[in-house]
Parts: sequence; structure tokens; C-alpha cells
Amino acid sequence: MPLIVQKYGGTSVADADRIRDVAKRVVDTFRAGNEVVVVVSAMGRTTDDLIDLAKRVADRDHPREMDMLLTAGERVSMALCAMAIEDRGVPAMSLTGSQAGILTTATHGQAEIVEISGDRVRAGLDSGKVVIVAGFQGVSPDSRDVTTLGRGGSDATAAALAAVLGADVCEIYTDVDGVFTADPRIVPDARKIDEISYQEMLEMSVAGSGVLMGRSVEFGRRYNIPIHVRSSFTTDMGTWVKEETMEEAIIRGIAHDTSEAKVTVHGVPDKPGVAATLFEPLARAGVNVDMIVQNVSRDGITDISFTVPKSSIASALDVAGSVSTDVGAGGVDVDEDIAKVSLVGAGMKSESGIAAKMFRILSDHGINIEMISTSPIRISCIVAGGDIEKAVRSLHDGFQTAMAPASEGDG
Amino acid sequence: MPLIVQKYGGTSVADADRIRDVAKRVVDTFRAGNEVVVVVSAMGRTTDDLIDLAKRVADRDHPREMDMLLTAGERVSMALCAMAIEDRGVPAMSLTGSQAGILTTATHGQAEIVEISGDRVRAGLDSGKVVIVAGFQGVSPDSRDVTTLGRGGSDATAAALAAVLGADVCEIYTDVDGVFTADPRIVPDARKIDEISYQEMLEMSVAGSGVLMGRSVEFGRRYNIPIHVRSSFTTDMGTWVKEETMEEAIIRGIAHDTSEAKVTVHGVPDKPGVAATLFEPLARAGVNVDMIVQNVSRDGITDISFTVPKSSIASALDVAGSVSTDVGAGGVDVDEDIAKVSLVGAGMKSESGIAAKMFRILSDHGINIEMISTSPIRISCIVAGGDIEKAVRSLHDGFQTAMAPASEGDG
Repeated sequence: MPLIVQKYGGTSVADADRIRDVAKRVVDTFRAGNEVVVVVSAMGRTTDDLIDLAKRVADRDHPREMDMLLTAGERVSMALCAMAIEDRGVPAMSLTGSQAGILTTATHGQAEIVEISGDRVRAGLDSGKVVIVAGFQGVSPDSRDVTTLGRGGSDATAAALAAVLGADVCEIYTDVDGVFTADPRIVPDARKIDEISYQEMLEMSVAGSGVLMGRSVEFGRRYNIPIHVRSSFTTDMGTWVKEETMEEAIIRGIAHDTSEAKVTVHGVPDKPGVAATLFEPLARAGVNVDMIVQNVSRDGITDISFTVPKSSIASALDVAGSVSTDVGAGGVDVDEDIAKVSLVGAGMKSESGIAAKMFRILSDHGINIEMISTSPIRISCIVAGGDIEKAVRSLHDGFQTAMAPASEGDG
Repeated sequence: MPLIVQKYGGTSVADADRIRDVAKRVVDTFRAGNEVVVVVSAMGRTTDDLIDLAKRVADRDHPREMDMLLTAGERVSMALCAMAIEDRGVPAMSLTGSQAGILTTATHGQAEIVEISGDRVRAGLDSGKVVIVAGFQGVSPDSRDVTTLGRGGSDATAAALAAVLGADVCEIYTDVDGVFTADPRIVPDARKIDEISYQEMLEMSVAGSGVLMGRSVEFGRRYNIPIHVRSSFTTDMGTWVKEETMEEAIIRGIAHDTSEAKVTVHGVPDKPGVAATLFEPLARAGVNVDMIVQNVSRDGITDISFTVPKSSIASALDVAGSVSTDVGAGGVDVDEDIAKVSLVGAGMKSESGIAAKMFRILSDHGINIEMISTSPIRISCIVAGGDIEKAVRSLHDGFQTAMAPASEGDG
């Protein structure tokens, strides 16, 4: 019997009516002859409300207890989903992350899935039940404490469960119709992407496309589980993320990201090891560095710029400031008014001139490029924050044909 | 080091400010040189809100999932309490019922505590932490499912933990000052009882005094753990429930209960075994029968009346109706407009004439007695619902002296 893992996000289970809708969809899938595992997030704004409550009772952070608190959210939504499914005459059972055997590292708030035993999930399926599993949470086998997986955690739960159970597909239900060639709020004629490879989707996620988090795509890629990102409000096909795509295109899509800031260390003596002196302590401080650019050295002195999430600015300045003093650099400054625009597409590997065309389009629209980084299937440029919408629109226009699937482009 | 178990009910943890108050009290107790275990209920109306949500997603009852749902309530309050305590510089750790090793029967919604391993509670205390345990919940070792203990469950958790850990006292914090000689809303000059024996408290609970549930008193009695019922809004002494009381009184207090209804089966052929024919199927249907009265038989025909919780009327009528048909009785009726008033006091064992005086007082106030039942230290009368306040007031007046502690009464 085919096995389908379905993940429903917070907006899909935001209230009693939505939960009844989810139950109907799950029951339809089950009655169509599938085994179904459902992964749910907390209802609507629950997680934010709980964080607010925590801030009102305590001034400091208490990571273990914060995880205990937040995991109450999925507990509510999963029990309600199970009730709504059983009410339609299909046996169902909800399991916490711990009960489902989702074993994680002990890092509260940012735990990584290490192993999934999944015995009780399998037993539930074998007894003819729909099994509902709490997303976003697990348990650390060392401390026996409850953990949460951080941002995108429920998607990761779903994809990891799909991998362990050998599911035929992992369906990610969300409030949009799929992954688009660009953010439709910025580019009104952006197109839904029907198929995208794991590698391209990973690059889109890294580049700021918020629809699907990289962690879940990585599970899909590693265990070759197709991921279907689709709307919980329609029955339309969404975007299939899988190994081979039928539709080849040079550029798959354009992603952008306004969540980063640029930090620059000025007047760094350009000696061997100076980059390590800066980036090792940043890594130890948990600062997630994205792009790095080191200028050509002039008179043995260089500037090093890097981008970090805005939420890490304080720690980044802390570390960079003390390194700057240690190595005798000229000082540190930060620019929060930046944004990143990226072209992603496996086709660019075999097509030359994509980067040149990208830079030309931006320049033609009067947009200055502050930093550049590339991967084999992605080109990213940092531009001024105020230029980002213009950048996304002009690139979407300029690469319109390159984004058309080859089969359609021929017609 | 003395070990104190403190239980805080829903009103004591109703919002962030109250939780901060609880944290202060816990920290004060800890800093005074005690080990402290805290048992918490869900915040304020949380449990009712979750039940409402369940009713909106499902028309039928789903006991396993309802327990999964409701246990989210204590999860939130216990994590917030732990944060608020840690914020004051005292290490704290919250544990679910399952983590605390509270093993129960598998009856969802009405589980009984079977055993408490308490290893993690003890380990937490040994490492110098305040341990916060979720009230009202446990885990069934057979099904590995989460269970809830039903009404008064958090008190039971606290008393059972106190017993297992050998605590010096189990403090039950509530929104009233203690146990009173009668409900102060009905009898303005009702007095707070300073000390009461386990046996008297059990009878008061059974008779409708809602301050402390019988299950927790039973744990206290069996393991001889003093229970201190007190207000979470003051530091005043409340009511001590313990084996031996300093203050002897003939009557300890007056309890009343308006939650029951009277069911009467008319014209029952008075044959051996006819009572069993009625009460066995009622027990099987889970109907909790309180008082039973069988009239003197006339011409081999009798009436049998019994009281049940109003919430069980439907099942009681179902069972009684079919038994009535089977045994050829004359039919069944129900009277919801009744109430029970009870005198409780160990002193009545050695004092004759208490029952007679009770009946006289009620009769002097024009109150008709419909049913009577007695235990060695309690006399209960069923009266018309509209008479209950008058009954409580007149008995409190009439037994004023008998309720005074002997030491004071002599003065």
C-alpha cells in the first residue's frame, strides 16, 4: 500500500474549521487506499503567543524550559487533528516527537534529528490507523529532555519521517500554491514551478525562498523521497521537488533575502591566517556567516566583508570588534540596509554568460552590486536594500525565456 | 533537609503576574532551607478552553486524544513556572507526569495513580534544583499513552508525590483561606478550620466540600503526610489536615452538595436480589451511586431511591428504565431539584443525640428530609434544592457550640 506523509503548517491548522478541513483531506487520502502519516505544526500564532508569555514571566532565556513550553503547541494541534479524523470514522492516533522516537541532539531550540526509531508510527500504521506526529520536536536520548528543531522544524520532521518509513511522497501543505519563479508579491507574473531538483531547491532555500526549508530538502535528496509542496486550500498540483525533473530550464527561479546585514572589517593586515582568526571565533559564537568577500590587498592591507543574519549582528560585532583590535585592523562597521538577489538553475552549468547577463541587467537598472558569490547553479548579488524589488523584477523580466521549460519554450 | 511539596491550582497560575508570585513563594521556601517540589495545574481557564476546542473539531468523544490535548495545559504552566523560578536565580526543572514516573491505570480521563517511580524528581532535588511536576497527568505503562486523573487530579499528584518522596508537608495552594465550617458564601460567620483529621476531611470531601478532593486526602492518610490547605494570596496559616488534631470538636463542619439528582424506581417487587439487579448494571455503566434508600415493603412491593451526579442522569435512567421493565416494576422518575446537607465530626461517635438534634433543627425550620444516610462520623440528609441555604445556615447556628474547639469552648 502506498505510504504518504502529509505535513500541515500553522495556517493550515489555525482554527477548528481548518482542522476539520485537514481531517477531510487526510481521510480522503486514507480512503483512496494509502497509509497516511500526518505531521502538524502548532495552530496559527500559538508559538508566538507562548514566546510572549515566556517573556512576561522571565527576563532571561531558559532554553530547556522554552522547549518544554513550545512543544505544548503541537500537542494541542495533533490531538485535535486526531479527534477530527476519528470523528470521520477513520482510526487515528497522535504521537509526540518523543513517542514517535525522533531522537535529536541536545541543543535546545536548534536540535538536529539524529535518528528516528519510528516503531510506534509503524505499529500504528500496521493496525490500520492514521498516525499524527508532532512536528518541530524530538527528545535528546542523553538528557531525556524534550527538544525543538528550530525554524522549518516541522518540514524536517516530515521529510525525515518520510525517509525512515520509505514513504512514496512527502506532501508539504502550506498557504501558497507552491514554489514560484520569484516572489509573487513582488513579481505579479511569477509562475508556479511544476518541478525542481533537490539541488536547485536547496539553493533557492539558502537564497531566501521561504516556502521550503533546506533541512527538509536535504532529507528528501539523501533518501530520494519526492517532496510535493502544495496548498492546503485547493487540490491543485503544487511544486514537485525531486531528483530528475522533466522540464529542463536554464534558470529555475529568482530568490531574494532581506534578512541579512553586511559587516566589514577595515584595514586588515593581509597575512596568512588572518581570515581564520576572524571566522573561527564567529563560528564558535554560533554566527551563521553567509557570503564572504575579501578585497584585493593594497600595501598589505585589505577589507573583509561578510553577511550574517540581522539577528546575529550583536554577536558578530562583538567578535569582529575584538579580532579587529587583536590583529591591529582599522575597525568594524555594519550595514543593515542590504539585500541579496539570486538566480538559481541547474541549466546555468552548461550555459555561459548567465552571470554577465545578470550583472548587465542590474547595471542597466542603475543597481549597484556590493558583493557577489556563486555556486555551480546559483549566482547571488548583494545590493542596497531599497533596490531589491527593482532587482527581482528586472531579473525576472530579463530571464523570462531562460526560465521557461524547454518543452514549452520550443512550442 | 526538609522536603516540601507545594501544589498550585489554576487560579494561582492564571497569568504571568500570578506565575511570578508563585515563583517568589517557591524561591522563598527554597532559600529558607527546604527542598521544594512544585505541582501545577493548567493556567486559569485553559482546560475548559481546550475542551471547547475539542467540541468544535469533533462531535464524538475521543478519550485518548482528549488526554493528549488536555495535558498540554500543565506543560505550559510548568515550563513558565520553571522559567520564572530560574529567573530568580534558583535552578529549576519541569517534568511531565510521564517524566516524573507517575504511572497510572489506562482509563483515560479518570486514571488512578498506581505507582510513582520519581527517579528524575529525586535526581533533580539531589542536584539542588526545584522540581516542577505537571499535575493531573500520568502515563499508562501498558499502553504507553498519556492519561489524566480527572477531577482533583493535581491535588492527588501532589499528595502522592509527597507520599513517595516522604515529604514533611504537602501544601495545597488555592484561592480560599482553607477549609471552613460551612461555605462562607452561604454562612457569613463560618470559621476557618485550623486542624481537621484525614477521616473528617474525607467525609467533608465526599459530602461536597470542594476545597480538597478525597483522593489527595486518602494519600495523605495512608502515608501520614500532613496536608496544609492555604491561600496563594496571603502567608496566613490555612487548614492542616493530619492524623491527630489538637483541637477536638464534636462537629467539625457542615458540607453541602447540589450536584446530585434523585432517581426513584417505583413499585419494585421486593424479592431477594432485586437491589443487585439494579445496582450491578449501574456500576457497570460507570454511574457513581451515592445514597440509597429502600422503603419498607408493603404487599411485597417497594420503592428504591438513589442519588447520582446530575451528569449521569441519562445513563442512570437508561439502566434503571430497562431494569424496571425486566423486574416488572412500576416505572422510574428523577428529581433534579434536591440537595444534600451533611454534618461531619469525629466527636459525634462519642456524643449521642447529634442526629436527633439535626433532624429537629431542620424540622423547626420547615425543611422536609427526603433521604438520610450516615457514617460513623457523618450524617447526610437530602432536602429540596430550594431549602439548602436555609438548611446549612440553621445547622451552622444550631451546632455553633459543638463546632467550637474544646479548648476555646471551655474559656
